[in-house]
Order: sequence, then structure tokens, then C-alpha cells
Amino acid sequence: MRCLQRQLAKRDPSCCAKRHVRGRPATLRVSSAFITSLGTRPASIAANMPTLDGFLQRIRECNTGMEELPTLTPFVVDGKEVGKLKPRFLEQVKRFPEVFIVEGQSGPSGKVTLTADLDTPEKRSEKVAAVLQQLREEGFITGWRNELYPVVPSFSAAPLLLVERAAATLLGIKAYGVHVNGFVRQPDGGLKLWVARRSMTKPLWPGKLDHIVAGGQPHGLSCAANVLKECEEEAGIPAPLAATARPVGAVSYTTISASGYKPDVLFCYDLELPPDFVPTPLDGEVSEFRLLPVEEVAAIVAGSTEFKSNCNLVIIDFLVRHGYLVPEQEGYLQLVAGLRSGDCS
Amino acid sequence: MRCLQRQLAKRDPSCCAKRHVRGRPATLRVSSAFITSLGTRPASIAANMPTLDGFLQRIRECNTGMEELPTLTPFVVDGKEVGKLKPRFLEQVKRFPEVFIVEGQSGPSGKVTLTADLDTPEKRSEKVAAVLQQLREEGFITGWRNELYPVVPSFSAAPLLLVERAAATLLGIKAYGVHVNGFVRQPDGGLKLWVARRSMTKPLWPGKLDHIVAGGQPHGLSCAANVLKECEEEAGIPAPLAATARPVGAVSYTTISASGYKPDVLFCYDLELPPDFVPTPLDGEVSEFRLLPVEEVAAIVAGSTEFKSNCNLVIIDFLVRHGYLVPEQEGYLQLVAGLRSGDCS
Repeated sequence: MRCLQRQLAKRDPSCCAKRHVRGRPATLRVSSAFITSLGTRPASIAANMPTLDGFLQRIRECNTGMEELPTLTPFVVDGKEVGKLKPRFLEQVKRFPEVFIVEGQSGPSGKVTLTADLDTPEKRSEKVAAVLQQLREEGFITGWRNELYPVVPSFSAAPLLLVERAAATLLGIKAYGVHVNGFVRQPDGGLKLWVARRSMTKPLWPGKLDHIVAGGQPHGLSCAANVLKECEEEAGIPAPLAATARPVGAVSYTTISASGYKPDVLFCYDLELPPDFVPTPLDGEVSEFRLLPVEEVAAIVAGSTEFKSNCNLVIIDFLVRHGYLVPEQEGYLQLVAGLRSGDCS
Repeated sequence: MRCLQRQLAKRDPSCCAKRHVRGRPATLRVSSAFITSLGTRPASIAANMPTLDGFLQRIRECNTGMEELPTLTPFVVDGKEVGKLKPRFLEQVKRFPEVFIVEGQSGPSGKVTLTADLDTPEKRSEKVAAVLQQLREEGFITGWRNELYPVVPSFSAAPLLLVERAAATLLGIKAYGVHVNGFVRQPDGGLKLWVARRSMTKPLWPGKLDHIVAGGQPHGLSCAANVLKECEEEAGIPAPLAATARPVGAVSYTTISASGYKPDVLFCYDLELPPDFVPTPLDGEVSEFRLLPVEEVAAIVAGSTEFKSNCNLVIIDFLVRHGYLVPEQEGYLQLVAGLRSGDCS
């Protein structure tokens, strides 16, 4: 009991440890050169950041507006829920009863469906597109992209219809993206991350910091093909190099804002770049690229909202996977769990 | 519309892609030597495994018995829920009304608490330890470990009491562990994983495959110190090398079995080992170590229950983080989300 009390009182790590270390002491059979070659343990962030409050705050900012959930009406196609509409957009689609049927009350107990004659993805896509086009002409839908998003109950499922990207949040459909952490290994084993500054002319998030490469996942492209395409368009990364990008997981979040319901999943990629590679913005969406030490990027994420909000999640996931954060930091598990707060399917 | 129809009909990736590739073609400014130095893209698993059903099955096996949840009674200490008891263990603690108070009915509407006089962690630990000791002597608690686990509402919280590890599942408290993926980089960029075979004399999971190093997280040790301790004890990995292990996240699962309620969180570590390092079992818990290509380990995980069940989750997480699995495989997102099915806090 004295041992137990001492542990509780002082949290003396040696107390338990000594009891458990059995057997002969291990001999050092490993050259220190090998250990050095692994690079410095990225402990600097952990040492300077006892809690992870800044990172947790970024996660909360991506998952806001949930108090509005009871006001959203499910969008159901072919018996599967594929989206949620805010009351304001529900009123709009009610104007098109030859395409949209609103059943029951506004809210979770009701639902929006498509008319029964729209029994193929092609028919649904065509009729819904006509409605969206009219709403665009009326000025209700802005930021038209000429890019089609699949409407799916989950990522692997066949699309039930395709819709213009600008309507994704209004319909509350699941949207997917690819985000690439472009990093450069330093001689001392540390890492630097390429960071983009979004052009001031971008309609969304102008001037914010971003990944070297990131993009929405349109219909008709695999994620891998999308990474290649975006690498070329956004940063001039040639295909042979872009093809070495590795998928390393996904993050998810749900935002309910004035625009609508946004349940997003971002596929994360790590792309190691050679020290002499310099990205070039080809499509005018980026005003500048900078190569920053990961520690500096981490400080920006934890201490500001300089990054486009969802990039923060992908960078935090990078920090977790590369050992920049440690379980001893308060909030570590909340952070790991929080990176997939949204419906990750 | 023809474009849209063609996409839906044929899922022709080139349709969208061509429309989006703008700007001049990128020139190859990167030496092929650099790309080769990054190693082969670990695509072999993805190519041979169109769905991830085998991995998803391993996740389901770690998350079983949830249909019994309505029969469990919350264990509440200092106003915080810290565990859940099955009816059989509830009957046992009822025999000690000087320590445990059972309020209300068996099940989620009732609760088990400690008597009001047990108002410090020390008092709680001492009185509960006496009860557990008696249940041990009566043969109700087996597999006594002489190892104390903290009873906490979440990992970062101060322990409300300490209990013998053998009682953790009976009390349904949150338990934590550290699991180390010990890997060796091959000249071609591929990876091999060190795999342990558990001794046939281990009380739990005898003869099963395991990580090179893994252990429960006792009170009084940081995770980092526990990794060092277990590395030495279980595999003879010297401290300077073990200290290069990097925390890379966590997995979680919940099992309800005959033993009780088991909401576990495993902190995952990657430890790169030099090619000439050979682990040595020092504590008799391992019968042999083998170094296997990651592809082979993946096939064992997907196709069998050879590994101790929770090791499968940590290995799947390794496969995800190192790019062995790809978003194009059906079930990828379910897998990423499923790795943290349990309460990850």
C-alpha cells in the first residue's frame, strides 16, 4: 500500500517501473550512426506545447452549427439518405414539384425526394440540373463551377445522380476531397512543408494558407488520378513525382453554415519532394508557395486561423502520424478522435 | 448532357479529366533517381485486394457483444462514469456494502458507486483492493498481475483510484496500451515488420502472433517510458534505439465478452530498426520473433485470426498510414473510421 500511496501522491514513475524491469540489462547492439540516421525525434512541438488546445480549437471550427441539425430535412434518393436541406433551400426546391417532392414537415421527420419517374441516375441528373440552372439564373446559386459531384450514400457506392458542385452544400450531400502534404526531408532529419497562399481572386477563402495541392473529388476520376491532375494544375508537379504521393488516411468534419450542410471527407496524401523542387502555380489559384519548417506550420495552425479551415485537420493528422505530437500532451486522444468527427464513409 | 451521360454510363475517368487539365504541361524537373529513392509505391496489396472485407472483419471481431450493453450497470466514482459492470460481477460487489453501493436496478438506469467515506484516491484504492483480493482468494478473479491500472474518465484525467489490472474488465474501466510496429526498411524501399509469437505459457492469447513490443499502460509511467520498458523487457531493444520510436496515433475498440466490458485505447508507435538488429525475448513472454514483409503480414491479418485480436487494428493502421491501402479499395473509409470504433478518450 505504501507503494500505491507513493504513486498516487507523487506520481513517481520509477515506483512501478523498477518493479517491472526484469531480466538482464539489454546490451547496446545498435550503432549510434543508425540512430542518428533516423533523424531527430520531433519533440520540439511537444516540449513547447503541454496542451493541444489550439489544435482542438481548429477542429471545433470545422465542426460548427450542429445546433441547427434539428431544422434540416433529409434528402432521400432511391430510399437512401444522401443529403440534408436547410429550410431556406427547402422552400426553393418546393417550387419544382415536377422534380422534388417534399413530404411531411420541414425537419428530420420529413423528407425531400425526387419524383418516381426519375428512376435512373441519368434522368435524375438531367432534371435536377435544370432546376439548379434556373436557381443559378435567379441568383440563388452562386459560384458555379461546371464540375459534377456524385450524390452517394457512401464513397464506394454508385452515384444516384450527379449535381453541379456549387449546389453540394445547398443539398447537403457528402463531398470528398484530396489534400496533399508536400514535404521535404532536411539533412538533420527534420521536415519542411510546402505551404500555398491562395490567390486573392479565389471566391472561397481568398488569401488563406493552403496545402501545396488540394482539390475536390469530382465524379469520374479516381482519387489517385485526381491527385495527379491537381498536382500538375496547382503546383506544376510532374506526374512521375506526383505518382509517388502516398494515401495515408482520411479526416472528416461536418459544418452547418449559412450556405447549408457540409459533411466532408478529405483523403490525405503525403508527397515527399526533393530539396531542389520548387512548385509553380499553373492555374492562377495560388499567389505564392513557401517552404516552412513543420514546427512553424504547427505554430500557425495552433495559434491562428491563417489556414483554410479544413487544411488544419490534414496538417494536424500529419503532425500526429509523424510523431510531432505525443500521448503525454493533454488532449492527444481527443485530437486523434476529433480528426474524424464527421461521418467518415 | 452527353458528357454527363457518358460519365454515368461508363464511368470514364478521362471525360472529366480532360476538361480540367489546363495550363501548359509540366516539365520533368525531378531526377528519376530521387523518385527511385522514395522506394516502390506499396501498391501490391491494393492491386490484389479490391475490397477490404478481411480487414473490416478483424475490426468487427474487436467490437463485439454490444447487444449486451443494455444489461451493464455504470460504475460511477466522484460523479464521473468510469466503468460498466456485467450482472454477474454486480452481484459480487453487492456483497461488500461497506465499499460498493448499488443504486437502482441492474442496467443503464442504475449505478454502482463507492461509499461516501471513500473520498480520496488513496482510500478508494485501499478499500477496493481489499474487496478484489478477497474475490481473488475465492477464485472469482483470476490472472492476477500485481500491476495497477488507473481508473479514469479519460486518459488525461487524474486517477480516481487504482485497481489491480486483472479486475479492469470486470469493472469495465478504460484501459490503455502501447503497441510498437518494429519495422525494417528494405533496399528496394519496401518494409518488413518484426512479428512475435506469444509463448504458449501466456495466460491470454497463447501462441498467437503479436507486435514486437506491446504492453498495457500501468499507472505511474508515461507512455514513452512504458515503450522503453517494454522494448527492453520483451525484445531486448536498447534504450537509445527504443527512444527513436515515434507515437503515430491511436486506435480504440470496445469488446463485451464473458469477462466483462473492455473499452480499450492503444497508442501506436512506429520504430524503425536497423537491418542487422535481432530482437531477443528477455522475459519469456515470446517464443520466437520473425521478420516478415509487410505484404505477408497484411495477408495474415486479412485472411486469418492468427494475430492477437487487437494487434490487427494497429497493423491495419500501419498499412493505412504507410500507403499500403488506397481510397479506391471498397471499404477504405469504413476501415479508417472503424479503427477508432471505441471511445477514444
